Amino acid sequence: MKFTIQKDYLVQSVQDVMKAVSSRTTIPILTGIKMVASEEGVTLTGSDSDISIESFIPAEDEGKGIVELERRGSVVLPARFFSEIVKKLPKETVQIEVQNHFLTVIRSGKAEFNLNGLDAEEYPHLPQIEEENIFKIPADLFKNMIRQTVFAVSTSETRPILTGVNWRVEGKQLTCIATDSHRLALRKATVELENDAQYNVVIPGKSLSEFSKILDDSNDLVDIVITENQVLFKTKHLLFFSRLLDGNYPDTSRLIPNESKTAVTLNVKEFLQAIDRASLLAREGRNNVVKLSTLPEGVIEVSSNSPEIGKVIEEVQSISIEGEELKISFSAKYMLDALKALEGSEITVYFTGAMRPFVIRTVEDDSMLQLILPVRTY
Amino acid sequence: MKFTIQKDYLVQSVQDVMKAVSSRTTIPILTGIKMVASEEGVTLTGSDSDISIESFIPAEDEGKGIVELERRGSVVLPARFFSEIVKKLPKETVQIEVQNHFLTVIRSGKAEFNLNGLDAEEYPHLPQIEEENIFKIPADLFKNMIRQTVFAVSTSETRPILTGVNWRVEGKQLTCIATDSHRLALRKATVELENDAQYNVVIPGKSLSEFSKILDDSNDLVDIVITENQVLFKTKHLLFFSRLLDGNYPDTSRLIPNESKTAVTLNVKEFLQAIDRASLLAREGRNNVVKLSTLPEGVIEVSSNSPEIGKVIEEVQSISIEGEELKISFSAKYMLDALKALEGSEITVYFTGAMRPFVIRTVEDDSMLQLILPVRTY
Repeated sequence: MKFTIQKDYLVQSVQDVMKAVSSRTTIPILTGIKMVASEEGVTLTGSDSDISIESFIPAEDEGKGIVELERRGSVVLPARFFSEIVKKLPKETVQIEVQNHFLTVIRSGKAEFNLNGLDAEEYPHLPQIEEENIFKIPADLFKNMIRQTVFAVSTSETRPILTGVNWRVEGKQLTCIATDSHRLALRKATVELENDAQYNVVIPGKSLSEFSKILDDSNDLVDIVITENQVLFKTKHLLFFSRLLDGNYPDTSRLIPNESKTAVTLNVKEFLQAIDRASLLAREGRNNVVKLSTLPEGVIEVSSNSPEIGKVIEEVQSISIEGEELKISFSAKYMLDALKALEGSEITVYFTGAMRPFVIRTVEDDSMLQLILPVRTY
Repeated sequence: MKFTIQKDYLVQSVQDVMKAVSSRTTIPILTGIKMVASEEGVTLTGSDSDISIESFIPAEDEGKGIVELERRGSVVLPARFFSEIVKKLPKETVQIEVQNHFLTVIRSGKAEFNLNGLDAEEYPHLPQIEEENIFKIPADLFKNMIRQTVFAVSTSETRPILTGVNWRVEGKQLTCIATDSHRLALRKATVELENDAQYNVVIPGKSLSEFSKILDDSNDLVDIVITENQVLFKTKHLLFFSRLLDGNYPDTSRLIPNESKTAVTLNVKEFLQAIDRASLLAREGRNNVVKLSTLPEGVIEVSSNSPEIGKVIEEVQSISIEGEELKISFSAKYMLDALKALEGSEITVYFTGAMRPFVIRTVEDDSMLQLILPVRTY
């Protein structure tokens, strides 16, 4: 293998596939990046066997020559060293040549690196996915859907299924749900889908987070293919594979109350800052819990108390309070996460009593919902 | 105590004194910030007993009212909470009131914090320093002198004196020297000094780093007072006290060679980047060591070899090579530190053989010097 390549394309591509490379893998060759050079271009692959990323650098991009091939071939290079080296090369172009025993020479200007490579034939094969049922979402919407749900997955392995996000497709609508059993995030969107295929799968939260980091904020469509045990996300020059989680996702629909006894509409920014300040002292005490009480004249009081340090009381003027008076306690962290995930400048919190889960929605938008379980303190 | 204060002044001042507050102190009251309010303004103090910082917020600054006093007094507040609280307060002004038992109420807009304070009488007194012999350095020069030497102090406590920077004042010249016994950094400057006082003290590297973080990049003069066991740095509204290190600093003058057998003049940026790339593979191997060899026609070769990973060879065109041929090995990290510390775009490295310390100087500037001990590999 021997070719010359534009450095910036190589750096970007290496950075993308590195998202899948783990230094803690039990399969030594997976600490490397696989590189294959052909007339069409150069393909890089990184994998930790849960996630695999394939990035393609075309020989030509918009009429500009990117890769100049002298000899086809392939090699696996140590990922960490290779990624640090390409970032620091002195010139705009890089020559990569594989010699005997996969010794790989990387040249740029007067810098010459010799890296011990491995045989690409020994690199595990990526899953073969039949691209029959594809559905499509614009990249920016997709990133938002991930951002608004993935933070709510469980970080504990006691119920592994909850470390993933439940994706359901039905009637051309995708619903994403994440819960750690203390709070729940839900986001819906319409997808482009040619048939009436239905899916109900659970994608590891980590896979979605990593893919979101690679994805640009454009409205280019992302192709999504779901199989029995894999999901594939496709963009122009990138394939992102993730395994799916085994098992049945709990039915969360019964958890979400349909009615409410108290509905408080608030300015997101004011409410968020008040909760943030109240949580400063709550952190020391009982699991970051703050209290919320309705007061007369549309005022709500947010407070927390940490006997050794002190206490804090915040008053926030609501836009409206409808229904019964209320005192309730909840995790400040969950509330901050939920408020940061929602869009829009105004939200309504729907309470059904101090001991019942409550729902936060953006005013006039039912495509997203956050639910939090209260904490018993009264 | 009761007063109202402009939040931005309070935030800045708290941030400055926080530099001296350690959460790992054995004296509980030192986890707090002392606050004293009088007609002149508000004084904040933080200390870890090695370093003490006093910051003064005047009642009026350039004709603008900063502090409005209602009642004089003092209190000690938990530093970590107080600093986080003031940063997040909602309004431009803050009211602070000490009630019974040092309970302190902090009000801003509709936010009200109650913090349990302590009696300021129990806070240790700052050292009393007679301001007889003051010398002065502009702040920006002072910051540079710290930056160019402090990185070379020892981080090991086996020879505690080497964790400090040796300051010598003689004939109106200040010389700062730091060494960890593998490399040495030296910086000289003329100071403003009214008499011919001489000093030879060792200031903890940590104290200088912390003070440097607080100091603005202005050419305002910093007053420096050295006593038997303390040094005091004074700026307009800040006092910074540090204890001095006990013991005699080693005589480093004999370590610095006066002659050289090979002198190589180089562009700093090109040399630094070549060393940086060579160190990528060196990190894995023998203690981050790179080799440097002179080649014909003014070229130098920088290389490193890590048998399991691979090797790297860099060629750098020098501006000039004078004297004997040379092969030498040294720590890439020490060289990078030294090159980053020096000013100017060209440096000369003066070698006196492969086994002898070598000196790096900025071309045409003898106020600063970096010295590195080579590593035996041949």
